Amino acid sequence: MEPDCTPRYLASDNTSGICPEAMEYLLEANRSDDLAYGNDSWTERAADRFRELFDYDCDVFFVFNGTAANSLTLAAMGRSYHSVICHELAHIETDECGGPEFFSNGAKLLTSPGEHGKLTPEGIEALVTKRSDIHYPKPRVISLTQATEVGTLYSLDELRAIRAMADKHDLRLHMDGARFANACAALNVSPAELTWQVGIDALCFSGTKNGMAMGEAILFFNRELSEDFAYRCKQAGQLASKMRFIAAPWLGLLESGAWRTNAEHANAMARYLADGLIGLPGVEAMFPTQANSVFVSLPPAAIAELKARGWTFYTFIGAGGARFVCSWNTTTELLDTLINDMRDALSQA
Amino acid sequence: MEPDCTPRYLASDNTSGICPEAMEYLLEANRSDDLAYGNDSWTERAADRFRELFDYDCDVFFVFNGTAANSLTLAAMGRSYHSVICHELAHIETDECGGPEFFSNGAKLLTSPGEHGKLTPEGIEALVTKRSDIHYPKPRVISLTQATEVGTLYSLDELRAIRAMADKHDLRLHMDGARFANACAALNVSPAELTWQVGIDALCFSGTKNGMAMGEAILFFNRELSEDFAYRCKQAGQLASKMRFIAAPWLGLLESGAWRTNAEHANAMARYLADGLIGLPGVEAMFPTQANSVFVSLPPAAIAELKARGWTFYTFIGAGGARFVCSWNTTTELLDTLINDMRDALSQA
Amino acid sequence: MEPDCTPRYLASDNTSGICPEAMEYLLEANRSDDLAYGNDSWTERAADRFRELFDYDCDVFFVFNGTAANSLTLAAMGRSYHSVICHELAHIETDECGGPEFFSNGAKLLTSPGEHGKLTPEGIEALVTKRSDIHYPKPRVISLTQATEVGTLYSLDELRAIRAMADKHDLRLHMDGARFANACAALNVSPAELTWQVGIDALCFSGTKNGMAMGEAILFFNRELSEDFAYRCKQAGQLASKMRFIAAPWLGLLESGAWRTNAEHANAMARYLADGLIGLPGVEAMFPTQANSVFVSLPPAAIAELKARGWTFYTFIGAGGARFVCSWNTTTELLDTLINDMRDALSQA
Amino acid sequence: MEPDCTPRYLASDNTSGICPEAMEYLLEANRSDDLAYGNDSWTERAADRFRELFDYDCDVFFVFNGTAANSLTLAAMGRSYHSVICHELAHIETDECGGPEFFSNGAKLLTSPGEHGKLTPEGIEALVTKRSDIHYPKPRVISLTQATEVGTLYSLDELRAIRAMADKHDLRLHMDGARFANACAALNVSPAELTWQVGIDALCFSGTKNGMAMGEAILFFNRELSEDFAYRCKQAGQLASKMRFIAAPWLGLLESGAWRTNAEHANAMARYLADGLIGLPGVEAMFPTQANSVFVSLPPAAIAELKARGWTFYTFIGAGGARFVCSWNTTTELLDTLINDMRDALSQA
Repeated sequence: MEPDCTPRYLASDNTSGICPEAMEYLLEANRSDDLAYGNDSWTERAADRFRELFDYDCDVFFVFNGTAANSLTLAAMGRSYHSVICHELAHIETDECGGPEFFSNGAKLLTSPGEHGKLTPEGIEALVTKRSDIHYPKPRVISLTQATEVGTLYSLDELRAIRAMADKHDLRLHMDGARFANACAALNVSPAELTWQVGIDALCFSGTKNGMAMGEAILFFNRELSEDFAYRCKQAGQLASKMRFIAAPWLGLLESGAWRTNAEHANAMARYLADGLIGLPGVEAMFPTQANSVFVSLPPAAIAELKARGWTFYTFIGAGGARFVCSWNTTTELLDTLINDMRDALSQA
Repeated sequence: MEPDCTPRYLASDNTSGICPEAMEYLLEANRSDDLAYGNDSWTERAADRFRELFDYDCDVFFVFNGTAANSLTLAAMGRSYHSVICHELAHIETDECGGPEFFSNGAKLLTSPGEHGKLTPEGIEALVTKRSDIHYPKPRVISLTQATEVGTLYSLDELRAIRAMADKHDLRLHMDGARFANACAALNVSPAELTWQVGIDALCFSGTKNGMAMGEAILFFNRELSEDFAYRCKQAGQLASKMRFIAAPWLGLLESGAWRTNAEHANAMARYLADGLIGLPGVEAMFPTQANSVFVSLPPAAIAELKARGWTFYTFIGAGGARFVCSWNTTTELLDTLINDMRDALSQA
Repeated sequence: MEPDCTPRYLASDNTSGICPEAMEYLLEANRSDDLAYGNDSWTERAADRFRELFDYDCDVFFVFNGTAANSLTLAAMGRSYHSVICHELAHIETDECGGPEFFSNGAKLLTSPGEHGKLTPEGIEALVTKRSDIHYPKPRVISLTQATEVGTLYSLDELRAIRAMADKHDLRLHMDGARFANACAALNVSPAELTWQVGIDALCFSGTKNGMAMGEAILFFNRELSEDFAYRCKQAGQLASKMRFIAAPWLGLLESGAWRTNAEHANAMARYLADGLIGLPGVEAMFPTQANSVFVSLPPAAIAELKARGWTFYTFIGAGGARFVCSWNTTTELLDTLINDMRDALSQA
Repeated sequence: MEPDCTPRYLASDNTSGICPEAMEYLLEANRSDDLAYGNDSWTERAADRFRELFDYDCDVFFVFNGTAANSLTLAAMGRSYHSVICHELAHIETDECGGPEFFSNGAKLLTSPGEHGKLTPEGIEALVTKRSDIHYPKPRVISLTQATEVGTLYSLDELRAIRAMADKHDLRLHMDGARFANACAALNVSPAELTWQVGIDALCFSGTKNGMAMGEAILFFNRELSEDFAYRCKQAGQLASKMRFIAAPWLGLLESGAWRTNAEHANAMARYLADGLIGLPGVEAMFPTQANSVFVSLPPAAIAELKARGWTFYTFIGAGGARFVCSWNTTTELLDTLINDMRDALSQA
């Protein structure tokens, strides 16, 4: 199917493997036996390192993947008859196969539009004040994604404004940090600045997309919400018996700084790709490239040609849209090949 | 805490790390990028290899851990108002923090006693025929553990008798194979003989306890029960985006035969330990050592002394019981040290 | 607040009480003790009478209210990772506080627009074919409301077309019959013609809105879907111990024919009201009045004036819309008073 | 089947119908239309009357039946990964088909034995202190039944001792009051004395068994536990649209005092029956008759003979036990007939 043996994967940052810094700690953690269920010598170290990085005495938990991280956290932030306000493009709404509803036993997601994939205070308030009767699930949580599903970023000011709206209506604030590292790097802010300092109650920080094999960290800055949360993880099949194989790679990312340099690299690659693509005849930016994703509109024939040449990327039905995601190990060589193929494809289209 | 730096972990087979055969494939899978969500080049190979090993065209799924494997499978085998018959010592009853009830949205476990941790056809029938009214959740599934939670084994004849009882009352048959490999090795039977040939509908086969970092395989021999099961896994937070890092280590275990040699070694070590312990004054076998666990009763003072010397193992409150579990990397050196320490501890007790 | 003591309730058909035919049977059922949990002398008679009325050997269950009827039925028609296709104005989407998601443990509702509150085959297909990946909950059920939430009706041809689309994509077809009797009466068709003859798999038939104190009937024409459904009702708190007090009033409605005459009356009253209102200056029909509801747009000042005069009715925020619902006991006197008040209100507005 | 036309129902107090006081208010509530969903003129009155009766500013909710009342209340008192401590004979454990597990989405019931169907502080503590690891669902609630499932009563001192144990381990205290009125009457105490004054956090008070057609009241004395509880009821299908038909009969029971006189009558009838039965040759009391149930052991042949004569009552498989329950309308004539039939049956046995 592919003309050469280099994979042409730009569909998601989860097609990349384990980065060297994570792997080194994984191998190290495998040098000797250790206690199970997080009582090992790695888990507490990793949790402490998160507390240092965020400069906050938060509660830290490790789970296997993003569906679980977001769903468990949202379940802890409300009850089944509450609702969660999110953007209509939020991953929890569009790509979790009902995961948040399953883990919460029925909490409804209320979706709001918003330019560039971002919630606005007004959009949130419209959902909160729309109704106040018992037949409408009471809004209790706002969930926002940073960077968003369309590769854009909330500024600190935008986050503060959302927090103010949350306070006005007694809502909790959840951040889906599937690409949190990319956001920190792109905004050039610290993890603290981007979370508790702007009033985030809980963050789901993805390790998988940041260079690990699997594993996400959940950080509760509002510790009232994490009471007995370890039991919740256990019951829901998210307590790893050999937890050190999640904790140690995290420690590798944190101690080496790779959590951020990986993200910086991915962001830079996306910038490189955007610069190479946008401006080609027939290619238009769908969203500003602010983190590690590039969204462009293309002629359908060009999409078909790229797929024929073995490129994997997400397309948007009926819209002629394409998403390319860069990762910690994306190379300019790969992107140059794509840009060249794109030129060919466009000239044929 | 410990006099030397060798960990003295015999609490569970999940204190061991990743075996070489699994690690080799993990590293190999990390050599290049690959597709996500099981569309990679490893997952189908691993699933096919399971089908070969079991000599059956079964449906194969990979999830993160045992709580999820068992709970999701049981949820698929019944509905929320059905009940699951299991032994009163079954892990799903005693150690999952309500996981099966959570994933099934309320299915009740009906427990039965039974010698050596094993269900009997009579015990099963007693629960089925106890009541037939609507206020009693209708029995729909039998769940048995092979090897059992107390390290014993169901013989093929015992399994056939349970299957006959299942047929009599239209029940499905689930096998919790947390130590399935140990059972195959100890009984000297093939995976096929121990599962579909005796009428098992679905098996949860643990990779974690068999030498992996994490990851379990679920095999449905009754494929009516696995319709849309991939959606169930996704919704419940058990679809790994980088699934190759579960599939590849499994393939390593299967292609190398380590899945069985690891188990044979662990069983032999348990045998060695049992031989060394039982017969010491004050030590009595609580259950026959048939797989990789040794259950003995000890004087409380001996238990305390062993703990003081840094040994980790499970004890049974009020009973003076101790469980030691051997693994793929347990050494006779470690066991000799334990046996010596035990002698000391007993002489002081 | 009100100038006279006649309640001015037109907010819903659930502000009316128990009709004489239902009350007569309730009192009769109270003449002697009887067996519990539906083993009484009324429940089977009522169920049989439903089977006669629908000319079909369907499974019949009685539950307390509409939230439960719809939610339990939908839960039985799919699994938690499936999705239910419904209109964006469907009661199950807008007014159940997450009930369907709760009872199904997470099934997502996928909503479709459609003129006059009605699903179309094209709208359904758009949702089914939108995506086929594992992250999108697999469509399994279509739920439609007859009469719709905006008081309109699906014709038999429209229902047949939806059934054809359901067959094309292997979907089950649920009818929310909160106002099923009104639909039968308005379309002048038999219950059989309006359900199984056009391929409805399950119907929730409201007794509450039809003249009872409380109680809904669930009819499964596709009996594969109702296997063990009685257990589901029990577990979910919907098995009445003194079930005869739901079954007997139902029997009263069915044996007397009041189920239909009540609906005919309500429909006629809505027609009367619509005729009186529409055409007044400033009043416009929002939807055709086909059953027992009248939806009109009004000047906001007129709405305020009517509320000040003690009229209760639903309004639509920001839209100047008002809903008036007629019932089995609505009188022309009441409606004339409303029409007069409306004239006053409009002249003042 | 029966020699005369008087029903011989003593299986449960739910074979009785609606008492005159409840019916009178039901009919009165039906005299005019009223607002829906508890905004009517009856619901607040009934709730206020409960607050007067209990001399406490508690939160009051009305639901349809006992399964829902207990399950919803327990769900509100903990989370899915918590456990509920109850007696091994508790109705929530033996007769709800997994209802508590369903509504709580997986909370496990931990059962304790105890003489006369009663929990003891020691039994509770044994379950709490048995384990403290994450694999064991954390005990959060004690549920006790007053009167118990075997017709016995907790004294005020026993309740105080249980409350002390609850405080010691930070547990909440739930009272299943399926026969709460009978308990008040039998102990000759006020509702206040029997609930919040001994530290009950929430009570489920059955109207169905006390003379209504259906309907239970839930009273939260600990109002932190009832935050947003109305939403929970709505979502779970327990919000009656015509709520006045539950509230008004409750008001009838409360204003007339029938809630207590009904119970006193039922208790007296049970006393009468016990006096008549116990002492007959072959009849032995299984439990003391303290409320409105009589539990006796009988020769199996006598049981068979009574059943042949049309008596309905619960029997206990394999135990030769029989339960007879008296109600608000049980007559001495009926009981005399039973006693005579029993004499005959015993003489033939």
